[in-house]
Amino acid sequence: MKELLDGLVEKNKALIKYGQVANYIPLLGNADPKDLGVCIIDNLGSIYSSGIYNKKFTIQSISKVIALMLAIMDKGEEEVFKKVGMEPTDEPFNSLYKLDIPYGDKPANPMINAGAIVTTSLINGNGEEKLNRLLEFLRKITGNDTINYNEEVYLSEKTTGNKNRAIAYLLKNKGLIEEKVEDILDIYFKQCSIEMDCQDIAKIGIFLANKGRVLNTGEKLLDNKTNSTIIAIMTTSGMYDFSGEYAVRVGIPSKSGVSGGILASVPNRLGIGVYGPALDQYGNSIAGYGILKDLSEELNLSIFT
Amino acid sequence: MKELLDGLVEKNKALIKYGQVANYIPLLGNADPKDLGVCIIDNLGSIYSSGIYNKKFTIQSISKVIALMLAIMDKGEEEVFKKVGMEPTDEPFNSLYKLDIPYGDKPANPMINAGAIVTTSLINGNGEEKLNRLLEFLRKITGNDTINYNEEVYLSEKTTGNKNRAIAYLLKNKGLIEEKVEDILDIYFKQCSIEMDCQDIAKIGIFLANKGRVLNTGEKLLDNKTNSTIIAIMTTSGMYDFSGEYAVRVGIPSKSGVSGGILASVPNRLGIGVYGPALDQYGNSIAGYGILKDLSEELNLSIFT
Amino acid sequence: MKELLDGLVEKNKALIKYGQVANYIPLLGNADPKDLGVCIIDNLGSIYSSGIYNKKFTIQSISKVIALMLAIMDKGEEEVFKKVGMEPTDEPFNSLYKLDIPYGDKPANPMINAGAIVTTSLINGNGEEKLNRLLEFLRKITGNDTINYNEEVYLSEKTTGNKNRAIAYLLKNKGLIEEKVEDILDIYFKQCSIEMDCQDIAKIGIFLANKGRVLNTGEKLLDNKTNSTIIAIMTTSGMYDFSGEYAVRVGIPSKSGVSGGILASVPNRLGIGVYGPALDQYGNSIAGYGILKDLSEELNLSIFT
Amino acid sequence: MKELLDGLVEKNKALIKYGQVANYIPLLGNADPKDLGVCIIDNLGSIYSSGIYNKKFTIQSISKVIALMLAIMDKGEEEVFKKVGMEPTDEPFNSLYKLDIPYGDKPANPMINAGAIVTTSLINGNGEEKLNRLLEFLRKITGNDTINYNEEVYLSEKTTGNKNRAIAYLLKNKGLIEEKVEDILDIYFKQCSIEMDCQDIAKIGIFLANKGRVLNTGEKLLDNKTNSTIIAIMTTSGMYDFSGEYAVRVGIPSKSGVSGGILASVPNRLGIGVYGPALDQYGNSIAGYGILKDLSEELNLSIFT
Repeated sequence: MKELLDGLVEKNKALIKYGQVANYIPLLGNADPKDLGVCIIDNLGSIYSSGIYNKKFTIQSISKVIALMLAIMDKGEEEVFKKVGMEPTDEPFNSLYKLDIPYGDKPANPMINAGAIVTTSLINGNGEEKLNRLLEFLRKITGNDTINYNEEVYLSEKTTGNKNRAIAYLLKNKGLIEEKVEDILDIYFKQCSIEMDCQDIAKIGIFLANKGRVLNTGEKLLDNKTNSTIIAIMTTSGMYDFSGEYAVRVGIPSKSGVSGGILASVPNRLGIGVYGPALDQYGNSIAGYGILKDLSEELNLSIFT
Repeated sequence: MKELLDGLVEKNKALIKYGQVANYIPLLGNADPKDLGVCIIDNLGSIYSSGIYNKKFTIQSISKVIALMLAIMDKGEEEVFKKVGMEPTDEPFNSLYKLDIPYGDKPANPMINAGAIVTTSLINGNGEEKLNRLLEFLRKITGNDTINYNEEVYLSEKTTGNKNRAIAYLLKNKGLIEEKVEDILDIYFKQCSIEMDCQDIAKIGIFLANKGRVLNTGEKLLDNKTNSTIIAIMTTSGMYDFSGEYAVRVGIPSKSGVSGGILASVPNRLGIGVYGPALDQYGNSIAGYGILKDLSEELNLSIFT
Repeated sequence: MKELLDGLVEKNKALIKYGQVANYIPLLGNADPKDLGVCIIDNLGSIYSSGIYNKKFTIQSISKVIALMLAIMDKGEEEVFKKVGMEPTDEPFNSLYKLDIPYGDKPANPMINAGAIVTTSLINGNGEEKLNRLLEFLRKITGNDTINYNEEVYLSEKTTGNKNRAIAYLLKNKGLIEEKVEDILDIYFKQCSIEMDCQDIAKIGIFLANKGRVLNTGEKLLDNKTNSTIIAIMTTSGMYDFSGEYAVRVGIPSKSGVSGGILASVPNRLGIGVYGPALDQYGNSIAGYGILKDLSEELNLSIFT
Repeated sequence: MKELLDGLVEKNKALIKYGQVANYIPLLGNADPKDLGVCIIDNLGSIYSSGIYNKKFTIQSISKVIALMLAIMDKGEEEVFKKVGMEPTDEPFNSLYKLDIPYGDKPANPMINAGAIVTTSLINGNGEEKLNRLLEFLRKITGNDTINYNEEVYLSEKTTGNKNRAIAYLLKNKGLIEEKVEDILDIYFKQCSIEMDCQDIAKIGIFLANKGRVLNTGEKLLDNKTNSTIIAIMTTSGMYDFSGEYAVRVGIPSKSGVSGGILASVPNRLGIGVYGPALDQYGNSIAGYGILKDLSEELNLSIFT
């Protein structure tokens, strides 16, 4: 497996030159586009890594998956999906226009920004409590007590996040969030700035693959239904407006972030974390996608076969 | 003329029951829907009034016309129309979705909220200076030194104006406004809360009818080109997404506000101010529209005949 | 006047190189982009021409104005505007998407293709009768009995008009046209292929300027209300999604066609016909627009001054 | 299993009263809303049926899956997905507006009408050949040589299919189909009118579950990659703009038709055919969805667990 990973990292580095590091959050622009790493954890706890797998990066949109878990645990599916849909959309992740048209009543799904802001608002707790619960939850899943958010990236997002502000005020205007807009955005920006490495991400992947059970401790944190809801939504909407093609080409429930991370979970089998900050036009790691595509073919990982 | 006006006020009161007072700004909801008044000023300075013509109301979107005058005087047409279009739109006044789609580069025109926020931002001066210049300009045009904004309405708009905040953050995100969003919105909400009565409004109407010359003092404040630009934009876009039908039915360059005021200007002939807070589905005074339609027919005022 | 026109034709030829001849109807692509001509007729019947003013061209969208006259004469404004709106739109002339969204119930206005197809369908008469009545009406207005449609252009439009077919089937699906789609399109394509020269067009202009009275015969064909409805709609929607800026820059009620013709009518004063097949990005004659802009400034023709 | 099915049919009949039979194709309106049936075939060829499982119905949109198989077999994935996307959309199945906006270059996916018309056009063969190949393919998969299309339903669709005509002319206008529009629609309407019963549908389901191998004959008709592409697209886009929620609630790759049929395929395990013509607001069989949801829970069929 280690050799396979080494080979795939090497091979897919060739894709990096076709991608670009995200620059709309200034600090993300400092990432090294040549970085590429992967970590895989199997059901028995074996860990395989290759490339730049232990560099920390901010998880960005990958945090939407964690926020959704907590929101469902706290409020139940019925309550959550009254305020955010479950339908994949062919609009970009930061689109808001469908909230503005007469028949647009709620965000399409929790994997686009508008939906994720609603999800975060549905987590129990005031202000920092939400964030602390998110962090605690992640530390439990990964067994990594050092997980925290990056203050600099958070401040960079806060300073430049005007599109997200527009989205949040629109949600406020529609009665879909109750907190003050700046308060909920503060948590949202911090949650996006949580730092992890590929191994941490792979731990989330194996946690979901094991139906919400922590690999090391055996602790069951998610009930089966919630776990499969998360997996289904990652499959239909996890890779932005490339989710449909990704399902065809890779077929592994996944969620990407604009910092270049990808969380992937092969039900009952594997957790995978990938990092490669050079992005394609959809905002997905271009070489990370390459690795996952190759892995899926080599190991026959697609849930559609 | 006085008799004609009395008759038209009486006749058009019958329309009030089909309209509704605006309630999305809470304080506007306190207006008396039964109010209806009109004031006409002709070229020689004769003033004719009828109904509830001397009750003050906040001018709301009528202020967009004044802001556009100042922005053009300060920055020139070329600069202004780089950041806001001149095209009428069939979308509602508070629509923002066209700013969010890939080919949406600037607000359609200065008479919708998105465009008006840009216009206000283009007025010279920092913070309160913009507002003071707007107030001074209005006092000069109307000869009424008491004109000011209503603090309560301003605060009500500020508290509830989340759709406008969404719009402004989207404009900020697109680089169309330079000030801090809350700063520019503060001026925008104050400008919307400026109070006038029908006679003040009619004075603006006759000022525009006289190509930007103040009736009483003879002072020329707008050059001819700017004046006709204002008149043209009022004609194509002044009555929200009813502007086209209004051109057919009334044919007088006009601008309405959701408080129920309508500013109308018959080039070279008359200035008209109308007040009637019961609105139709487009946000225009329902009985005020009736009066203007009748006046246009009785006095042959349409610019299209 | 003749000298003025000669000068403006000469001056505005410089714009031609920035435009392009329409090519989506193959036969229109054969036009000579260097052609530029203008004809003006005043209230007393004086005719002034310059440049290539007596070359025939197909009137294309200019025919929408004529069809609207007949439809209103035949069915009355109320009936007509139940099925087509009067609102200017910021969408292109051949847009159909607003008919497909849940709240899209009818075409925005009779100057876009969707609206014009409805208008044509509202003209009394079956099949060729509609066309013959259109031709008779035009012959009466212009005093030119040779006016007819160009068979070749008609066939070219019929062969390639799939976007218009899509529009018409959508209208059919929404119950907005009653005839068979191919039958109504046949008339529509023929109507667009009617040939005229600048003088014929100017005759339509002076007819509208004179409130629907034929200049030579004195015959009154349109009542005043219908005439001013036409003038208003030309003003707000006549120049495609450039109508707003055209109102500001020119201020003359006008209608353009993709063959490069522009019909302009200065109420109570002048009729103008322009021909210049090189088009700008909106589909309007680029040099024709230049001539009209200059004429408006030189002779103070804007209805907004 | 038989008892389970009997119970689920009985239980889910209660949902029928909340649904409605499709009526936009007149003949479909004649279906009996109280009908409800299901057939399941497992890997060993065991067949379990319950309710009205052997009544024939036209497969409508289920045919899109078959057409996609043939198109990929004939042209290859690369060629096919140049002209139709793979992205799920939150627009209705008969939406066309995204083809009309400037950045809309091809239909979102092969499961909406616009995409399916393109797919059909990509099947090798002229006119009736396409249809005959579709029929032959279905007969092979199901082992049922009597499969054919229903002439009456076909004619009913042909007569009333103006929305599909609008879509097809738009596709033609964009160069996405090569045949004459009426020719390709003729095949499309016939393909939608192919008649099957629940058992035939279940045979398609088990064919896909077995990676494209015919159960009875062992013949391999689809390569593994194509089969998993079909399964992935059914999962993300098979249930109209309810596909996302269906993935969460049921989690079985499926495709529904407006006649009330649902094709479902549990990879490596089961093929399922359901029939229940009373539809929910998305156009899916309301009680059929209920049966599949219950089955998924009872037998743990979701691919996301």
